[in-house]
Amino acid sequence: MSRPTSRVLLNTGDGKGKSSAAFGVMVRAWARGWTVGVVQFIKSEKWVVGERKLARHLDINWHTLGDGFTWESTDIDHSAQMARHAFEVAAEMLKSGNYDLIILDEFTYPLTYGWIEKDAAIQAIKGRSPKTNVVITGRNAPLELLELADTATEMRKLKHAYDQGIRARKGIEY
Amino acid sequence: MSRPTSRVLLNTGDGKGKSSAAFGVMVRAWARGWTVGVVQFIKSEKWVVGERKLARHLDINWHTLGDGFTWESTDIDHSAQMARHAFEVAAEMLKSGNYDLIILDEFTYPLTYGWIEKDAAIQAIKGRSPKTNVVITGRNAPLELLELADTATEMRKLKHAYDQGIRARKGIEY
Repeated sequence: MSRPTSRVLLNTGDGKGKSSAAFGVMVRAWARGWTVGVVQFIKSEKWVVGERKLARHLDINWHTLGDGFTWESTDIDHSAQMARHAFEVAAEMLKSGNYDLIILDEFTYPLTYGWIEKDAAIQAIKGRSPKTNVVITGRNAPLELLELADTATEMRKLKHAYDQGIRARKGIEY
Repeated sequence: MSRPTSRVLLNTGDGKGKSSAAFGVMVRAWARGWTVGVVQFIKSEKWVVGERKLARHLDINWHTLGDGFTWESTDIDHSAQMARHAFEVAAEMLKSGNYDLIILDEFTYPLTYGWIEKDAAIQAIKGRSPKTNVVITGRNAPLELLELADTATEMRKLKHAYDQGIRARKGIEY
């Protein structure tokens, strides 16, 4: 198997900007006429109101398969099932050859929770269509993902308004 | 002077994603119907082909005042002059009250080079219209900016494809 010419980018760390930076890559890809897919492993209101609205505007394929998968969930089995289903869809997309770029947003969490096997995740990414670039976001990326990534960035919190008791501001924070 | 309810966000560090994350904030603001302005202190091809095309698409005000201000410039005086002019325009925008969000992209560089006085920069940001949120990007942010920021994130390079001799890939890297 020849090495794919595409790239794997990883945005991890406890700071802000992991998903926003992935989104910047998505937009850059859009500007070049690439076919882009997004699989969102955690339902996130901020993506719904912001990036997702834009994605609709730009006709980007968007899969919010993480719906129902939240930390407040009272039914963890259901959440795990949702995450596994999201991964099945992502795996199909990765090997389909239909995408120039796939964003796996917040993908590290189901790995950390053991809901998706790390080995299966690594194999799905390694065995992707050679043309398909991948951007993965989420805190605490497992070492295997870091090894697989061509480019990995840690977003580190230096200072955060929350720490100073300032409430999240609509538009900026969510 | 009452404390502005708006925020100052700072994305610094040597890793990737500083401008992309700022761009994600821009898009989120757009999705909420905010008036957004961008002042780009360094001419950057990647913004031209990607984010800038989108900004045009979304009718976002864009000021590429850094045109001609590059590290390859053979006329440093001219570059400094361009940067100072860009700052004058940014300062006007900051106090105008016409913007919900202003992005000062790559703003740290002219500060580091001494082309714009740090004190003047801090005063312009502190004295902005209370409604105007500000996002600043660039490496090596001076301490004064970090102190002023409500939220500061360091993008740290964990691993980079360039280190492994892989050429930049169109669409992903620029």
